[in-house]
Amino acid sequence: MPNVYDVTTWTVPGQPGVTATSDIGAVINSIIAQIKADQPNPASRPGATIYIPPGDYSLKTRVTIDISYLQIKGAGHGFMSLSYRYNSGTSGWAEINPGASRVRVEKTDGNGDAFLVGRSSAPRIASVEFRDFCIDGVNFTPNQNSYLNGKTGIRLSTANDSCRIEGMGFLYLEHGIVAYGADAINITNNFIAECGSCVELTGYGFASKVTNNHVGAGYVGFSVFVEGHEGLLITGNNIFPRGRSMVHLKNASRCSISSNLFHNFYPGMIDMEGGNNNNLIASNHFRRNRENFGVMQAYNNGKDDLYGLIMIRGDDNFVTSNLFYYDVPTANIQPSGARPTIIRVNTGARNQITNNMVSYSNVPFFAVVLDGASTQTKILDSGTAAQIDNQFTNNFTLRPTP
Amino acid sequence: MPNVYDVTTWTVPGQPGVTATSDIGAVINSIIAQIKADQPNPASRPGATIYIPPGDYSLKTRVTIDISYLQIKGAGHGFMSLSYRYNSGTSGWAEINPGASRVRVEKTDGNGDAFLVGRSSAPRIASVEFRDFCIDGVNFTPNQNSYLNGKTGIRLSTANDSCRIEGMGFLYLEHGIVAYGADAINITNNFIAECGSCVELTGYGFASKVTNNHVGAGYVGFSVFVEGHEGLLITGNNIFPRGRSMVHLKNASRCSISSNLFHNFYPGMIDMEGGNNNNLIASNHFRRNRENFGVMQAYNNGKDDLYGLIMIRGDDNFVTSNLFYYDVPTANIQPSGARPTIIRVNTGARNQITNNMVSYSNVPFFAVVLDGASTQTKILDSGTAAQIDNQFTNNFTLRPTP
Amino acid sequence: MPNVYDVTTWTVPGQPGVTATSDIGAVINSIIAQIKADQPNPASRPGATIYIPPGDYSLKTRVTIDISYLQIKGAGHGFMSLSYRYNSGTSGWAEINPGASRVRVEKTDGNGDAFLVGRSSAPRIASVEFRDFCIDGVNFTPNQNSYLNGKTGIRLSTANDSCRIEGMGFLYLEHGIVAYGADAINITNNFIAECGSCVELTGYGFASKVTNNHVGAGYVGFSVFVEGHEGLLITGNNIFPRGRSMVHLKNASRCSISSNLFHNFYPGMIDMEGGNNNNLIASNHFRRNRENFGVMQAYNNGKDDLYGLIMIRGDDNFVTSNLFYYDVPTANIQPSGARPTIIRVNTGARNQITNNMVSYSNVPFFAVVLDGASTQTKILDSGTAAQIDNQFTNNFTLRPTP
Repeated sequence: MPNVYDVTTWTVPGQPGVTATSDIGAVINSIIAQIKADQPNPASRPGATIYIPPGDYSLKTRVTIDISYLQIKGAGHGFMSLSYRYNSGTSGWAEINPGASRVRVEKTDGNGDAFLVGRSSAPRIASVEFRDFCIDGVNFTPNQNSYLNGKTGIRLSTANDSCRIEGMGFLYLEHGIVAYGADAINITNNFIAECGSCVELTGYGFASKVTNNHVGAGYVGFSVFVEGHEGLLITGNNIFPRGRSMVHLKNASRCSISSNLFHNFYPGMIDMEGGNNNNLIASNHFRRNRENFGVMQAYNNGKDDLYGLIMIRGDDNFVTSNLFYYDVPTANIQPSGARPTIIRVNTGARNQITNNMVSYSNVPFFAVVLDGASTQTKILDSGTAAQIDNQFTNNFTLRPTP
Repeated sequence: MPNVYDVTTWTVPGQPGVTATSDIGAVINSIIAQIKADQPNPASRPGATIYIPPGDYSLKTRVTIDISYLQIKGAGHGFMSLSYRYNSGTSGWAEINPGASRVRVEKTDGNGDAFLVGRSSAPRIASVEFRDFCIDGVNFTPNQNSYLNGKTGIRLSTANDSCRIEGMGFLYLEHGIVAYGADAINITNNFIAECGSCVELTGYGFASKVTNNHVGAGYVGFSVFVEGHEGLLITGNNIFPRGRSMVHLKNASRCSISSNLFHNFYPGMIDMEGGNNNNLIASNHFRRNRENFGVMQAYNNGKDDLYGLIMIRGDDNFVTSNLFYYDVPTANIQPSGARPTIIRVNTGARNQITNNMVSYSNVPFFAVVLDGASTQTKILDSGTAAQIDNQFTNNFTLRPTP
Repeated sequence: MPNVYDVTTWTVPGQPGVTATSDIGAVINSIIAQIKADQPNPASRPGATIYIPPGDYSLKTRVTIDISYLQIKGAGHGFMSLSYRYNSGTSGWAEINPGASRVRVEKTDGNGDAFLVGRSSAPRIASVEFRDFCIDGVNFTPNQNSYLNGKTGIRLSTANDSCRIEGMGFLYLEHGIVAYGADAINITNNFIAECGSCVELTGYGFASKVTNNHVGAGYVGFSVFVEGHEGLLITGNNIFPRGRSMVHLKNASRCSISSNLFHNFYPGMIDMEGGNNNNLIASNHFRRNRENFGVMQAYNNGKDDLYGLIMIRGDDNFVTSNLFYYDVPTANIQPSGARPTIIRVNTGARNQITNNMVSYSNVPFFAVVLDGASTQTKILDSGTAAQIDNQFTNNFTLRPTP
């Protein structure tokens, strides 16, 4: 078919020894060069599809995508738990590596990014698509539990429009997806786990979606990081441990976080940094318990149980109709003897916290803690009077849960 | 493979000059004729897949699909903003047209529909699938901002069952998708923007889904229009400007609109016409601000700020747990000096509006306005007493937000 | 392409008469044997893709999958309503069978499972993918409305990780999907209807998703059955009639059921068995009316109208922001003259039921019924005082809807 390429049959001009198996990065860059040569007219540059059949592929050379409409497509996300593997034996295991269309990021060329999308010329790159393959960072060295190796799966480095990352697998990368300046990006139906950070929307961005994914970062990073975004929809995701925070908003406004399932071993499950206004956090399920994997109990995100499962910093946010579950052995609560915080309003005016339920806690807790820099908070039906900690301010309205 | 066709290699019997590039419509019609010839037995008509590789394809002849199980599949939604292009220069642009598997609708045969699905014989057409290609209406003439060109991307014209429209791109069509009599249709993960109207479910319909899409209509039409539907699930969508209304219910009942992100420049974001009963509007984020693209500020949907961001017409609807943001410069509020309406109950009995937050407004507003034809409305925790406008009726119950 | 197979071109060694048409099961098993022979090294077993082009395929032999990363992929879910067909005439029908990539399960080998995934060796099977084909159980015999034929579409029989079932069609199977011990399974965007039971997660499981599906079981079984699960996200689904129950939780905890559309002809739409704790049921739409297909009116799930549309058994569950619609002719209410129950708390402590609306009922109803074994239930804004039935206990807190 025209404009359709198979990495396994492509030969790189002048480099007969290079194959998809030896360096899929060099192969894809060579195909992109061919696409550009074949499509000289700006009025007709439909891009192309590059297929990655099931197989193991080394990526020694960073892929650089500076054209729109390129689709890179494989045959499955190929996830398996390397975390479990590295912390256990593999004696007799049938498979010891991820699979499907598996790209092993080797960083041989010194570049940490496996796939770099960006250009300086106009217009913004549009509709680049990554579909159904596996980007495997292979290992964290020397400590497999460090989540550090300087590798990034996909980086969009310049402003971009309507790109898609769908059905992909990411694992053992310090950064799974980093998208700078994203407009209407679509990150859906991926499996992004065992990465330092999973999804990072940086710089600024608009009108995007992170939906229907399985996501779980390491203790050092973010499951979803949202910087300077205006209007991001985060819904239908299963966000599992760990993640320093699971959704981290930094100067992000008018975003919606609804109908997600959150589970973590640390406080700060949704965290806010800077000024974050008019965000909606609705109909989510939050479960916080103790790390249950012995070897990982040495690690955490450095936040104590006074921090809050949700930390609010900003104005006019709406936290409603969420369920919270807290179950940490008394001996593991930090600081010792502390009464855990579920929702904490650290700064900001006119935040509303209504109709939430702490559905279980093994110890007495504060459903809401109001810090001194919070003003005009309204708390309705989100805890009994005794479950609201207002020792630092009297600038609030309360209707306790009867 | 059997029953798999590539539009670029098909030759139309008797028309050697016709190719997918010159008229993909004629090519697909010819393939469909072949499929029908190859599958004479009603007990074994599995249909076929028609592939559209990445490329530019003119559609001069309307495609007519009167068989079930046909899948037409491309290599990406190929969206780029033509609105931005037509209102700016393109000097030095790398690409000036949409891409991927791009079907240019030329309406050369005088038919406005690019793809027409329907038949008069039984049973209803089932499981036709449109996947991952771009339908581009090319231009609105003579005014690129008119959203008028008489072109429709996909029209289902007779009752249909379990069809799928997924991963598609639609742009610069007067109508993106029009589905008459849809049962269990699945419209998911599409990018439907810069069309007059995007999704129109007409006539009647049942048990369908519009989920996980990026959608944004022009000021003349509807992002999602729902006529006579019984049970439609609209969830997980990012519905961005503009759209005369973003969800327009006309005699539609038992629908659910939840966990969506809505942003528009006009009132009437969710609008109801006729009698609409037992609908749920929950956990959505609504943002209304002024048109920020200078060239488009001349246009709007003709509704003033008294109309309401949500307009209720019907009985027993439930509006709950939504966040509303309103920020329009005083000089642009219509009528001048008006106090904007967030939720308006125009007609109908027993509507409930509970636990909503207006998270920001730059001017004093009414959270709820009750018109004289509204009765027995219940308003709980959705605004202070001063934010409820009940001058036209005293037939309501109020528990103001404390 | 390497590791890519087409069932229509494969020949089974030693069995020249076997084709995909005659027995796709034998063909796929033979391909799997080849994959295993080709991938002897546990460090590089990427699996493979097996394509099923559009066509009719008999499955006489059960497929056994004991490797990770296998993707089986077709060209569409191919659904048509066999229920309608078997209960009507087909005179003049253009198609009388399901289509696309249609696998007919014939159970010739005596095995009820069409696709069996499992193995006893380590590690757990991971990332097996079923995509976009149709598994058709063909008939229920002798009674086409019995939903009984001993056939199962896909069974995962041993603990598994990160598997995907997406875009599939299932019909006329006694069991659509049965997954034992699922971790992070992804069941999304399927059409699973006219099966005895549709999705059954058995044994135990973790951190999984059932999202964005069309689902509808028979009166004998479950649309979604969840046993022993810890953390399941059920969101964005359209779950239509019938189903003995539509979500059945059995000793399942920390699950979230949000933003779904539920429609059924029987009580017990969400049912709980055993102890089910800390589950969230939020922002869903529930519609219960009378069976409207005459031939099916003889069948039901045996539950009467006192059972509740939602039955709670367990502690600390949160039912909030849901809309309920009830419309059953007086003559069909069971027991005769009963006042129907919307939400029933049968057992358990500290359940909260807040901010729900019964948006319509044609007869007087109880919004909440508290049985004698329920304790400390909190009911806020979910019905007037007269709509709460507390004759069996006074161990509750009530703030009636004003």
